[in-house]
Amino acid sequence: MHAARLHGYTDDMSEGLAIEDIDRPTIERSDGVLVEVIGAGWCQTDNHIIEGMWTEYVDQDLPMTLGHENAGRVVETGGEVEVVSEGDQVICHPVQTCGTCRPCRLGETMYCENQSFNGLTTDGGFADYLLTSERSVIPLPDGVDPAEIAPHADAGITAYHAVKKAVDELNPGDHAVVIGVGGLGHIGVQCLDAMSAAEVTAIDLKDSALELADDLGVDNTVNPGNDDVRAFIDSVTDGTGAAQVLDFVGADVTAEYAPDITAAGGDHHIIGYGGHIHEPTQSLVNGEFSYVGNIVGRFAELQELVALVKQGEVDLHTSYYDLEDINTVAEKLEDGEIEGRAVIRP
Amino acid sequence: MHAARLHGYTDDMSEGLAIEDIDRPTIERSDGVLVEVIGAGWCQTDNHIIEGMWTEYVDQDLPMTLGHENAGRVVETGGEVEVVSEGDQVICHPVQTCGTCRPCRLGETMYCENQSFNGLTTDGGFADYLLTSERSVIPLPDGVDPAEIAPHADAGITAYHAVKKAVDELNPGDHAVVIGVGGLGHIGVQCLDAMSAAEVTAIDLKDSALELADDLGVDNTVNPGNDDVRAFIDSVTDGTGAAQVLDFVGADVTAEYAPDITAAGGDHHIIGYGGHIHEPTQSLVNGEFSYVGNIVGRFAELQELVALVKQGEVDLHTSYYDLEDINTVAEKLEDGEIEGRAVIRP
Amino acid sequence: MHAARLHGYTDDMSEGLAIEDIDRPTIERSDGVLVEVIGAGWCQTDNHIIEGMWTEYVDQDLPMTLGHENAGRVVETGGEVEVVSEGDQVICHPVQTCGTCRPCRLGETMYCENQSFNGLTTDGGFADYLLTSERSVIPLPDGVDPAEIAPHADAGITAYHAVKKAVDELNPGDHAVVIGVGGLGHIGVQCLDAMSAAEVTAIDLKDSALELADDLGVDNTVNPGNDDVRAFIDSVTDGTGAAQVLDFVGADVTAEYAPDITAAGGDHHIIGYGGHIHEPTQSLVNGEFSYVGNIVGRFAELQELVALVKQGEVDLHTSYYDLEDINTVAEKLEDGEIEGRAVIRP
Amino acid sequence: MHAARLHGYTDDMSEGLAIEDIDRPTIERSDGVLVEVIGAGWCQTDNHIIEGMWTEYVDQDLPMTLGHENAGRVVETGGEVEVVSEGDQVICHPVQTCGTCRPCRLGETMYCENQSFNGLTTDGGFADYLLTSERSVIPLPDGVDPAEIAPHADAGITAYHAVKKAVDELNPGDHAVVIGVGGLGHIGVQCLDAMSAAEVTAIDLKDSALELADDLGVDNTVNPGNDDVRAFIDSVTDGTGAAQVLDFVGADVTAEYAPDITAAGGDHHIIGYGGHIHEPTQSLVNGEFSYVGNIVGRFAELQELVALVKQGEVDLHTSYYDLEDINTVAEKLEDGEIEGRAVIRP
Repeated sequence: MHAARLHGYTDDMSEGLAIEDIDRPTIERSDGVLVEVIGAGWCQTDNHIIEGMWTEYVDQDLPMTLGHENAGRVVETGGEVEVVSEGDQVICHPVQTCGTCRPCRLGETMYCENQSFNGLTTDGGFADYLLTSERSVIPLPDGVDPAEIAPHADAGITAYHAVKKAVDELNPGDHAVVIGVGGLGHIGVQCLDAMSAAEVTAIDLKDSALELADDLGVDNTVNPGNDDVRAFIDSVTDGTGAAQVLDFVGADVTAEYAPDITAAGGDHHIIGYGGHIHEPTQSLVNGEFSYVGNIVGRFAELQELVALVKQGEVDLHTSYYDLEDINTVAEKLEDGEIEGRAVIRP
Repeated sequence: MHAARLHGYTDDMSEGLAIEDIDRPTIERSDGVLVEVIGAGWCQTDNHIIEGMWTEYVDQDLPMTLGHENAGRVVETGGEVEVVSEGDQVICHPVQTCGTCRPCRLGETMYCENQSFNGLTTDGGFADYLLTSERSVIPLPDGVDPAEIAPHADAGITAYHAVKKAVDELNPGDHAVVIGVGGLGHIGVQCLDAMSAAEVTAIDLKDSALELADDLGVDNTVNPGNDDVRAFIDSVTDGTGAAQVLDFVGADVTAEYAPDITAAGGDHHIIGYGGHIHEPTQSLVNGEFSYVGNIVGRFAELQELVALVKQGEVDLHTSYYDLEDINTVAEKLEDGEIEGRAVIRP
Repeated sequence: MHAARLHGYTDDMSEGLAIEDIDRPTIERSDGVLVEVIGAGWCQTDNHIIEGMWTEYVDQDLPMTLGHENAGRVVETGGEVEVVSEGDQVICHPVQTCGTCRPCRLGETMYCENQSFNGLTTDGGFADYLLTSERSVIPLPDGVDPAEIAPHADAGITAYHAVKKAVDELNPGDHAVVIGVGGLGHIGVQCLDAMSAAEVTAIDLKDSALELADDLGVDNTVNPGNDDVRAFIDSVTDGTGAAQVLDFVGADVTAEYAPDITAAGGDHHIIGYGGHIHEPTQSLVNGEFSYVGNIVGRFAELQELVALVKQGEVDLHTSYYDLEDINTVAEKLEDGEIEGRAVIRP
Repeated sequence: MHAARLHGYTDDMSEGLAIEDIDRPTIERSDGVLVEVIGAGWCQTDNHIIEGMWTEYVDQDLPMTLGHENAGRVVETGGEVEVVSEGDQVICHPVQTCGTCRPCRLGETMYCENQSFNGLTTDGGFADYLLTSERSVIPLPDGVDPAEIAPHADAGITAYHAVKKAVDELNPGDHAVVIGVGGLGHIGVQCLDAMSAAEVTAIDLKDSALELADDLGVDNTVNPGNDDVRAFIDSVTDGTGAAQVLDFVGADVTAEYAPDITAAGGDHHIIGYGGHIHEPTQSLVNGEFSYVGNIVGRFAELQELVALVKQGEVDLHTSYYDLEDINTVAEKLEDGEIEGRAVIRP
């Protein structure tokens, strides 16, 4: 089968992955599921993996097929699989979990002690076929196109996961801020709207992103290139600040907003990454705000997100590419030329 | 009356405060309460106030009487006060609140929009008398000595407040870490023990502090001067890390522990301050841990802490000083020569 | 001034209240607020009070002016009132609270140990003027008509309070059931929609109520007169039951639904009253569901509801009556002839 | 192998079960685990099963081996089992779960949609061997005797599960009531003590049970045969009632306590069963208390309880019997002659 594989880390996105012919994976366990990939989303994290930015955090055995946002059709199942059968259309949670460690028992599948992460620590879905397991697939509702929903397998649940935590703390009359209305942020804005009655302000340096946010129903938009973010949030919240801030950028400059725009007792959610937090501990004491880490959403959250999609609450803005064009996609994303989400159709 | 007042910021603790004769405050509102101070705890924050470290965060009008950990006897009340009468012994929450702003309505009295903070933004209790209000006093149970309980008005509820948040996330079998077993930390250790069944590891550079922690029932102690904290926590938690970390120090070096010793989904509570957080945002994403800010406990938490004291669950280690010796106390604390808590008896 | 007062309990609604001339109340405390009543909602509970159904639960001193859903204009304030001034338009939370008891400190104002309840334990708002206090009034946003918003002071926050608890437990894909789409239920349906992404089924014996529910956006409606409620909920939830059931009726027959339509771990919220729960304890063990009591919403919840109204998320269906017609309103409600909410304009 | 099996429902406990020779079960799935039973606790529910009291709630295929509180030694494992190996000592959670349904994904294993319940819907552990699965066994810490810990597999986690919910709502200064200090209640008392700082009152009709409660550290005991429970709770809580009531009896008379002894906003937990709730819905509205259903604790809670046992926080009072005496045990329990818990050693 064809697969787009990483052989060595590089900053040159034009030659990040090599398209190769490799053996189709075979099912070896009773719970194995082989999926013919119909859509595989490209993610900023794919660029970061190619750059070697994850070597410090996880073990990677190169060459490896990338691709962690996958959906497709089941073509074969292990001997004890009951949840899906051949022919079923599924979305694949990127993490393959054991189901027996303590975190799995608690439903916290992202902390599975025996996990494999598609396209990060094991072969992913930029290929004709993906080998995964019964515990990582969700049958799609009728009428949902795998290629269209694929990016929800990571971008979607990451945004949903953070919003779900934020919504628990948002009452009517409270204010939420979304920093960065890109691939994740534009999903976050829609989840906020569906699940809370908070007032929402979107922040982005691109006016086109702010226009999208406006179309998706946010109450206010602000471009830090033109306006003072701190003064703006101060004025729309009568000086109390935003109860919840969702930072889909995670740069130095966005993390620095926290003490000034977050309400007492509020949270600045770190979802995007790349920069640093530099902050006096006194600042967290004085304002009693928190920097809250956010990882990809757990399996059950992908089920919830699929329910939202089925209800028509979350639209993805996607463009499609062939597997052969995969390095072009990487370059375009690096240059900020992808609106919404790019999906590879192998 | 006598009062220890700050006239200007200085790093020289030997002359931080001046003992003066000033007018006894008078009650002007219907809910005013005048308290004869019996005990007033000295706090690291008093040193920080003298150094001018809070000018960036609050407005201070000098000269000002310091002292935010006060307990004493009611000597006069405003016309509509019902909660206490002349002669009642009380502990004074350091924050005087309006009772009508949104945070007060929610019970989040530390976020009161119209607050005065004893000894930080208004005259405090290093004086013969303290003017406060009905909303800020709690009658003491019989047999509780005001001088003994005074430090709970700030050190106590600050430790209790953070522990209460931590305990909500601690199941039997989980691990908690206490960094710094000083004035606040030794209270935190006791609150953890009373309110959870977690296994506790105490960290301190002073062996005497670790001995105190051991006496108070922690499961493990580690001195970073002798042992590798990261390796130690890794070994006692089977590599999963501590679910909750209570950082009563808040230095650069302690904030840096977070990604290595905090479990996935766990919290590193910032309670002490003075240093900085410097951390890649990717680190919070990968480990899904949070830096959680912690301010002084709210009024209702002081009620809960008084209940714990009444039940004998929390002992304070205190030493007593006269008002005249107040600058000596400041110097001793600066030099790490105060064990437990120093209390001024005006 | 004119006031509609209860002199004795009766089942004859045609002569429940007497319209009388009594003295206008006078402010005696520093936090007193005198409000000229512009709108006062009539509630099923007013009928119940006239019938004597609350004598077992609270102390009532007759004669008493009824009316607990009030809004109007401030005409006079006590000497220390800061939140409102003469001329401000306000909605009045029905409970006057002390602000100093433990429940008030926690924000749980409905449990205030020193409370008066307008129109239930002290004179209410079916009169030209209502005496209340600073802690019980909320200034109205510009453009909000006091007569229109008045029913939110009890019907609104009671529905909101229960929905807020329910929403905490509702994930996308979960199911919520609303039993009874009358004065409270039609508010509950709108709050559910604004604050969650759950699928909602409305149950009512009146087709006109179900049509209203349908207009307000519920996903399914069922009339127990025509269809089997248990089978219906079973089918729309794939046999798992509804995660949250909001029972705005509280009759024997509706409480009996619980074991059959509530999901494992779910809640049957009792909001309406009049009937009984009769259920084997084994049933609650086997299904692990709960019967959850619900009282009127707290003060802070009225603030949140006013924010929802300001955002246009909750519309009230109201009709208006003169004070002289008050007994007619009582009779009409008894006969099921009031759609939405009746408001008295004194 | 020998097994104690139910062939037909009866009220005569002297002949409830028949000791028979049946085939040892064989492993058929890759995750199967065969356990040699070392201890199997006898439970009030076993009496109820024999009486036919569960036929209305679950499907039972007779004859069936009873026994849902099992611990022993692994003697064989399916081909993909990794958590345990032959020779390991384990405690067996009574419910065998699929790991792939939505409740399992959430960690709510008691709601598994494809579950078997040992000794209730499938063969249990009153036999030489028990067939279970990898997802239902927990390796025992060194030094823990399987026969001693066996009752925790149901009695233990049921008590722990309810206490864990209660503890989330209990602050220092709050009051908890334990009704019934028998097989479950005496575990509940110890869990409350380990996990909270609440004041505890124990209620029982047997003075020996109250003495046990006293030894286990409760603050107050009351025998309804001698004292007025309502007046007692009123006096020890200053009239506010108990924040949390744990009803391990579940009789009509104990459920009736709720409106009088439960604090506003509090919970009356139904854990024991046999009686009925009869209560006006108005009562739940007025007091805003809840009747909270409680089922057996989930798998992860058994892990937490094993951690508590390892720490020495929970002692079981047990007596031991041979398999041949099993009907005698059933009779003794019926007659209230078992103190603590009876354990069968097959």
